[in-house]
Amino acid sequence: MTGIDDLPVRDELRGKSPYGAPQLDVPVRLNTNENPYPLPEPLVERIAERVREAARNLNRYPDRDAMELRTRLAEYLTDTAGHRVGPANVWAANGSNEVIQQLLQTFGGPGRTAIGFEPSYSMHGLIARGTGTAWISGPRNEDFTIDLAAAREAIAEHRPDVVFVTTPNNPTGNAVPPETVLALYEAAQAAKPSMVVVDEAYIEFSHGDSLLPLIEGRPNLVVSRTMSKAFGAAGLRLGYLAAHPAVVDAVQLVRLPYHLSAVTQATALAALEHTDTLLKYVEQLKSERDRLVSELRAIGYDVVESDANFVQFGRFDGEGGSHRAWQQILDRGVLVRDNGIPGWLRVSAGTPEENDAFLDAVRELNKEQST
Amino acid sequence: MTGIDDLPVRDELRGKSPYGAPQLDVPVRLNTNENPYPLPEPLVERIAERVREAARNLNRYPDRDAMELRTRLAEYLTDTAGHRVGPANVWAANGSNEVIQQLLQTFGGPGRTAIGFEPSYSMHGLIARGTGTAWISGPRNEDFTIDLAAAREAIAEHRPDVVFVTTPNNPTGNAVPPETVLALYEAAQAAKPSMVVVDEAYIEFSHGDSLLPLIEGRPNLVVSRTMSKAFGAAGLRLGYLAAHPAVVDAVQLVRLPYHLSAVTQATALAALEHTDTLLKYVEQLKSERDRLVSELRAIGYDVVESDANFVQFGRFDGEGGSHRAWQQILDRGVLVRDNGIPGWLRVSAGTPEENDAFLDAVRELNKEQST
Repeated sequence: MTGIDDLPVRDELRGKSPYGAPQLDVPVRLNTNENPYPLPEPLVERIAERVREAARNLNRYPDRDAMELRTRLAEYLTDTAGHRVGPANVWAANGSNEVIQQLLQTFGGPGRTAIGFEPSYSMHGLIARGTGTAWISGPRNEDFTIDLAAAREAIAEHRPDVVFVTTPNNPTGNAVPPETVLALYEAAQAAKPSMVVVDEAYIEFSHGDSLLPLIEGRPNLVVSRTMSKAFGAAGLRLGYLAAHPAVVDAVQLVRLPYHLSAVTQATALAALEHTDTLLKYVEQLKSERDRLVSELRAIGYDVVESDANFVQFGRFDGEGGSHRAWQQILDRGVLVRDNGIPGWLRVSAGTPEENDAFLDAVRELNKEQST
Repeated sequence: MTGIDDLPVRDELRGKSPYGAPQLDVPVRLNTNENPYPLPEPLVERIAERVREAARNLNRYPDRDAMELRTRLAEYLTDTAGHRVGPANVWAANGSNEVIQQLLQTFGGPGRTAIGFEPSYSMHGLIARGTGTAWISGPRNEDFTIDLAAAREAIAEHRPDVVFVTTPNNPTGNAVPPETVLALYEAAQAAKPSMVVVDEAYIEFSHGDSLLPLIEGRPNLVVSRTMSKAFGAAGLRLGYLAAHPAVVDAVQLVRLPYHLSAVTQATALAALEHTDTLLKYVEQLKSERDRLVSELRAIGYDVVESDANFVQFGRFDGEGGSHRAWQQILDRGVLVRDNGIPGWLRVSAGTPEENDAFLDAVRELNKEQST
């Protein structure tokens, strides 16, 4: 039987398996940081209405530059992130993964390097490899904060072309202080100069502010965002970035023409009309996230301070300890995420009922483990 | 003012401009091979219905493997292309551009090469460059058919990793005979072995049959397709491929996870329920295409035999002759495509009224030119 390795695939793909969390059918899914709240019914209707309108023109290519969508995204950022931006500052693509891919095709690629401080969002490294960009795994402290001295040293040594800073960080949940991001930006400019991509996928859940204002006067700084989390629209695949207009011009040199479908643009526009309602769910999730942190601590777990809609907890000692715990929680009908970080697991903030089910499961676990 | 070249972009992007036909607002747009027929209203309603349903679950990630969609696409291919395929043979992405990008990331990339026989679909070369794949422009005869001896020679000399064959060819419209494709496949296997990508974006408009049956027993042959043309859904951005299941497994190593949104999947599924109606429009377009060919010839133009929904016509002699003609046709309210092939222009088959407007415009042109 012919398999992948019988095909003339690239050498580095041999023996690999596709990225992705297991999609298991269990009652409580808290493994992919999805927003547990379905879109409100008036928004569902508005989506159907806008898509119906778009479908009447579906025989035509979509607006290649997605101008209306970029205008609305710019207004959302201006309203919520404390810095005025316009459509010329904003670019959108099929999920922040495609935004990152376009950035790496523009500023990374063969013969170039990118760095991230790991553990962090593992797609940064995977997309780097997919675009032929050499990947450098930068260091973090034991408590998952960025070790600024070590990070600066790594930047000075490797002179990367692209520097990723994820804040709040995934999967650990902690935010990176603005002064650390600024120091990394300065170090990156001194070393190369290179592009700094601040991945703010979870910023709406943070106790702190967006770093969007930092793009002012810093053309090599990009903030990337998504509608998957705060907008409760993981199924929509809408990522975007804000940066100097020259960055937006530059990614258009590598974007596939008409990459963003008319139905995607219509659906995103509908969701942006309902921002206020959706941000109320964010407030509920923040308080549930805070409850998870304090209850997990009360049970006796170590918990990383979280500015996201998920919580990293542990520690599960011993060889394979975290995977065993993952399985035991799953046996109780709750799916969390094992990111392969020894001793730790990640749980997404769900509805109050889902979080109760999760807390019950880990309480039993704790009893078992202590006997 | 900071511009692209002030950023640390890749050297090969400096001085480049984004790909894309001018999107001009004129009465008759026959420049991008769009289907001129809007989707029928019952299909528009079905799209709204399926998207409404998908929107109720939009807070969750979409089916990462798009199994239902791939099953329906496989049924469509089985019904229309004379060869039984299943979902394991089919893969879908955001437009055939993304399909091609994934194929090049899997089988091309840094240190590898791809060849196409030009003039052909210019995105093949552009996506090759975007994925770090060296691009070889292979030869064609003066009449735009593939010069098999010269093509074989180029394959033997360059030993490309990926060979593109576009049939019907864009922008020239002519189909490639199956025996030529088979000979190119044999040459490519003897030289390397390499992957052969048969781009059938326009196959539903052909007088001849799909080459889909050739995938049987040829794991290095891929047929790529799109819903943009025959399905009248350029705005949907849904491309797909059919190949040996190992190819489908392999592209999953490079695809961005959850690349295909829930609204895209829902809209494509709705369109696939209306295949019979949509293929009736294809028959109308084929007869309009044939009328364009014969009327253009009657006026006195050279016309390439067309198996697509567009027609390549000329010749416009002299330096810049085709661009001048393009402008003169535009001045009469009809937008056609100047693909930069000296002496030739391309016109998409529109509605009968649009084609009449086009024919009137070029009739006047011909008079002008002959005076």
